[in-house]
Amino acid sequence: MKNLTSSLLFLLGSLTLLAQPKTVVFQTDFGLKDGAVSAMKGVAMGVHPNLRLFDLTHEIPAYNIWEAAYRLEQTAPYWPRGTVFVSVVDPGVGTERTSVVLKTKSGHYFVGPDNGSFTLIAESLGIQEVHEIDEVLNRRRNSQASYTFHGRDVYAYTAARLAAGVITLAQVGKRLPNAVVKIPFQKPVLEGNAIIGNIPILDVQYGNIWTNIPVDLFKKLNITAGQNVKVTVWQNDKLIFEGAMPFANTFGEVPEGQPMSYLNSLMNLSFAINMGDFSSKYGVKSGPEWKVKVEK
Amino acid sequence: MKNLTSSLLFLLGSLTLLAQPKTVVFQTDFGLKDGAVSAMKGVAMGVHPNLRLFDLTHEIPAYNIWEAAYRLEQTAPYWPRGTVFVSVVDPGVGTERTSVVLKTKSGHYFVGPDNGSFTLIAESLGIQEVHEIDEVLNRRRNSQASYTFHGRDVYAYTAARLAAGVITLAQVGKRLPNAVVKIPFQKPVLEGNAIIGNIPILDVQYGNIWTNIPVDLFKKLNITAGQNVKVTVWQNDKLIFEGAMPFANTFGEVPEGQPMSYLNSLMNLSFAINMGDFSSKYGVKSGPEWKVKVEK
Amino acid sequence: MKNLTSSLLFLLGSLTLLAQPKTVVFQTDFGLKDGAVSAMKGVAMGVHPNLRLFDLTHEIPAYNIWEAAYRLEQTAPYWPRGTVFVSVVDPGVGTERTSVVLKTKSGHYFVGPDNGSFTLIAESLGIQEVHEIDEVLNRRRNSQASYTFHGRDVYAYTAARLAAGVITLAQVGKRLPNAVVKIPFQKPVLEGNAIIGNIPILDVQYGNIWTNIPVDLFKKLNITAGQNVKVTVWQNDKLIFEGAMPFANTFGEVPEGQPMSYLNSLMNLSFAINMGDFSSKYGVKSGPEWKVKVEK
Repeated sequence: MKNLTSSLLFLLGSLTLLAQPKTVVFQTDFGLKDGAVSAMKGVAMGVHPNLRLFDLTHEIPAYNIWEAAYRLEQTAPYWPRGTVFVSVVDPGVGTERTSVVLKTKSGHYFVGPDNGSFTLIAESLGIQEVHEIDEVLNRRRNSQASYTFHGRDVYAYTAARLAAGVITLAQVGKRLPNAVVKIPFQKPVLEGNAIIGNIPILDVQYGNIWTNIPVDLFKKLNITAGQNVKVTVWQNDKLIFEGAMPFANTFGEVPEGQPMSYLNSLMNLSFAINMGDFSSKYGVKSGPEWKVKVEK
Repeated sequence: MKNLTSSLLFLLGSLTLLAQPKTVVFQTDFGLKDGAVSAMKGVAMGVHPNLRLFDLTHEIPAYNIWEAAYRLEQTAPYWPRGTVFVSVVDPGVGTERTSVVLKTKSGHYFVGPDNGSFTLIAESLGIQEVHEIDEVLNRRRNSQASYTFHGRDVYAYTAARLAAGVITLAQVGKRLPNAVVKIPFQKPVLEGNAIIGNIPILDVQYGNIWTNIPVDLFKKLNITAGQNVKVTVWQNDKLIFEGAMPFANTFGEVPEGQPMSYLNSLMNLSFAINMGDFSSKYGVKSGPEWKVKVEK
Repeated sequence: MKNLTSSLLFLLGSLTLLAQPKTVVFQTDFGLKDGAVSAMKGVAMGVHPNLRLFDLTHEIPAYNIWEAAYRLEQTAPYWPRGTVFVSVVDPGVGTERTSVVLKTKSGHYFVGPDNGSFTLIAESLGIQEVHEIDEVLNRRRNSQASYTFHGRDVYAYTAARLAAGVITLAQVGKRLPNAVVKIPFQKPVLEGNAIIGNIPILDVQYGNIWTNIPVDLFKKLNITAGQNVKVTVWQNDKLIFEGAMPFANTFGEVPEGQPMSYLNSLMNLSFAINMGDFSSKYGVKSGPEWKVKVEK
């Protein structure tokens, strides 16, 4: 009976572990042509075989910290609490920059260099705790001898150990103040009869322009479906685009090849050409240095 | 003893769940550069942490419903019964089109817009049941307020709930007649001494031309290895290619750079250049509007 | 009580299986635009639903066996013992070439055509056993009738069965001598005051040049950080590049746009342009036919 009970307890323990597989989601600018991403996943699987490993994207343009920040913002809220994200877009690898784990108030974890990659997620999900990764404790065994591939030897390793419960958040390293490095950008504001905002990203697959102007702010312009929106776009101080286009609820409401404004899946104001590529046609791109003005 | 038994029953229940992980396979035209696919997977993981999530492809050319149909046809039969496919190539998102779950006679499930994406799979695997997705019941909580990203808020969510057993097929929504929207194309037929067919797809990585002419029909031309095949290709009514090439069992049987015909991995007649790119060289592409004639 | 005990034993058995999910990692030159990779994974999931399936890369340039060999070498050591790799870069498919499973001394398994793909891994990890795949026993049911897609019908199927414990290594097929087909290349050697070596691969995402000259050998030139390295590169016997560049510990040590030499994440000598693309600028590529000479 005693053996049975202890077997059962062992079973329950094992089962609990199995029943709560923890998830790590990877984002990098490595691309998928070589073995770098796979090596990171191999390291994670070596930490615990029941981890669930997923990708956000590995096609962040090389060194583009801003886009890394945006992809995290776009995606993380749709993953369950407890999901651990690894983001490795790290032009400063090998120089002075802090490696951190950020826990947001939403219960998500973000592992990577504190170089601005967490600009947007820190604001939208809220900072719960920030810990510096202690690279003496939290580094893949025997990797000290080499020039470290941080994504593999520190970030994937630490994320996997955190997700698997091998270490707690406190064991990541010393707690830092509740702040991360932030990239400056134009926040959406109403100025007189116009809204000023930023173009954080393109919907790259289709060449659509996504602003950071949310539906609630846009509504203050009292523009209804079918009415024209006047749009001006600058890169830094250089005028790139000026024009008017109808505001539409669906792509089908404007003829093919015509520009239009609409609300995207994040309920932000966006510009597109129905069945076309707005970005290519008008040379409008995205990043912290892009500014947009919208008027009735 | 009673506690032990009930613990055991609980264990058995949990274990059964664990022992039958259900699989969802995703196909889109989103590409992998942004977070859209990852957001879909996050929603699925939020439904049940033991789901197994895989990709078919996310590189369907934008809006290409026909290619979506073909990729499902090419791949689904190799996945186990019970696998749930999500296919989101949806140029009509936001307009009138029905969202469905198709169960085929092979026991596979297909979730997505009923816009022709299921043309081929319905024919080859057979329709068992079609249900309209009730978007009031089967929609991610709190997503009603926004312009819906159907792939994430309805299709991924419904597929995950179906795969995890949270809902039954009947609970997807009302049953529809056993039919799906179909894209017309030239089916393979023998006409006198020639076979007429369609070029459904290219083997894009290598530039090979895949027809829908199956081995059994091709055999009726009595062409043996080494003999020439006369091939004519039209796009709609425009002649694109006319030429003869040997029928070969393996690429090694013709010199490098030479065109050849062969049976591909689906046992359909195909055209290639050994170590070259037939499609680029001769301008032959694929789709429902492509027609091919093959003669001895 | 007896029933309880036997239930428990059954549970333990099931749990053991669950607790040791086995991993298959796939590498091909198929790309991800079509359904070929997904079909391979479907076949594997049909063998056992608890297998863990991952990707190394599917972007090996078409037919490039050398790069396949390099990606395995770069990645496999970071995966746990027991991981089964499937590598399908197979220009000779359909012709005479042996299909094998290689077990290395590190406890990893490699499944695929014996065409040189295992050149590097065999050397670095050591050959434990080589077995020829018996394609009568180890082939997906009902696939004999068709022109076989070996990656799906033989390699994915055999790898999955091996990983899941459905077959043992001995049941793969007859044991062969401890050898695999090897592609010749310049191994790193000290010749007088120079080191001669090979450029096995580019760090494609960034255009960096990776040599096979390891840190320990490079140290014999007594070059310290900041000192210049003289570099000469040939493709076969044709001179491609000749120049000098500082040896740096991190990219930040040289101005943007300047060439530099450094030790990569594998601790091999490499060349890069800080924030630039060395390969594009100087026309230096990689492969077994590339030779590099390094002097103080």
